[in-house]
Amino acid sequence: MIFVVTHGEEFKERLEPPLHLASLAAMLDAEVKIVYTMSAGLLLKKGVPDNLIPLGKEKTYLETLKEAKEVGVKIYVCSPVLEMYNLKREDFIEELDDIVGGMFLVTESLDADVTYTF
Amino acid sequence: MIFVVTHGEEFKERLEPPLHLASLAAMLDAEVKIVYTMSAGLLLKKGVPDNLIPLGKEKTYLETLKEAKEVGVKIYVCSPVLEMYNLKREDFIEELDDIVGGMFLVTESLDADVTYTF
Amino acid sequence: MIFVVTHGEEFKERLEPPLHLASLAAMLDAEVKIVYTMSAGLLLKKGVPDNLIPLGKEKTYLETLKEAKEVGVKIYVCSPVLEMYNLKREDFIEELDDIVGGMFLVTESLDADVTYTF
Repeated sequence: MIFVVTHGEEFKERLEPPLHLASLAAMLDAEVKIVYTMSAGLLLKKGVPDNLIPLGKEKTYLETLKEAKEVGVKIYVCSPVLEMYNLKREDFIEELDDIVGGMFLVTESLDADVTYTF
Repeated sequence: MIFVVTHGEEFKERLEPPLHLASLAAMLDAEVKIVYTMSAGLLLKKGVPDNLIPLGKEKTYLETLKEAKEVGVKIYVCSPVLEMYNLKREDFIEELDDIVGGMFLVTESLDADVTYTF
Repeated sequence: MIFVVTHGEEFKERLEPPLHLASLAAMLDAEVKIVYTMSAGLLLKKGVPDNLIPLGKEKTYLETLKEAKEVGVKIYVCSPVLEMYNLKREDFIEELDDIVGGMFLVTESLDADVTYTF
C-alpha cells in the first residue's frame, strides 16, 4: 500500500488519518510506504512534527509517526519538496527513511495493490 | 470501488463528483462504497446535506446522495470523525449505512479494484 | 495509470507533481491519462496555463503539459466542468485531447492498474 500525503500542517483535520490507516495496514502485514509530497513534505522538517497536534488528538504528529514506524511503515519524502522549499537532507527528522524521486513513486505505485492520496 | 470523501461543505465544487461517479459505477453493477472521513463526515450530519447545493447544481446534496443509494451505493462514515467533531450516531442522517473504523477501510481497499480519494 | 487532477491554479504547490509523475510513467511505456475535474478544469482554459508558473519552477504550466503530451500523456477534461463554469469546447487550449463524461472515468479506472487523485 502506498499513501501519498499532500496536505501540510495547515490542514489539522487531515494529519492523523493517513498515519492511522498506514499503521493498521502494516499491522495486517501489508508492506506500507508513505510518500510525502507538496506542502506535506514540511511535516517532516525538524521542529514541525514534534510541535504539531492533529485535530482531536493529544499526541503530537511525531509521536504518531513514530508509532507507525514501529509497526513497519516506511517514510519517504519526494525530492521536488527539497527544491520547492529550499531544504536539505539534514533539515528533516531522523525518522525519514529516504528521499525519493518521482520515478520511485511511479514504479512503487505500479507494483502496489492500493494507492491513496490524502 | 471505494471512494473516500475527505472534503467538507466549504468546498462547493468538490461535493457532487464523487457521488456522481459512485452512482455511475453502481449502475455498471460495481459494488461501490463511499467512506466519509475528515471534515467530509460533517456532510452527513443532520441538517447539513438537505441545505447544501453543490456548485452548478439545483438538487441538494441529500437528494443526490439518496439517488446514489437507490442505485446501490453504500454510505459509511469513519469513526474518528465522531471523536474529532464530538458527534454521536443519532447526529447523522438515516441514509448512513454504518459507522466504520479504519480497519474496515484498509481491508475493503485491499479487496477493491479501484480506490479514490476526493 | 489514471491521474485525476482536482485542484486549480490557486494551489501553486499542487500543480507540477501530477504532470511530472504522468510524464515519468509515460516514459516507462505506461498508458497514462490525466483527467481534469472540479476547479482543475480551469487549468486548461485558454489564457490560464500559459500564464501560470508552478511553485518552485521556471517553466509555465502549459510548457510542462506540452512536455507530458510529447511523451504520450493524454489530457481530458470532465464534462461537468463545462457546466459548472459555463465553458464551451473552444474555451479550452488545443492540447486538450477530449471532453469526457463520468462514465469514461469510471470505466477507465476499472481498467487501470493505478489511479490517483491530486
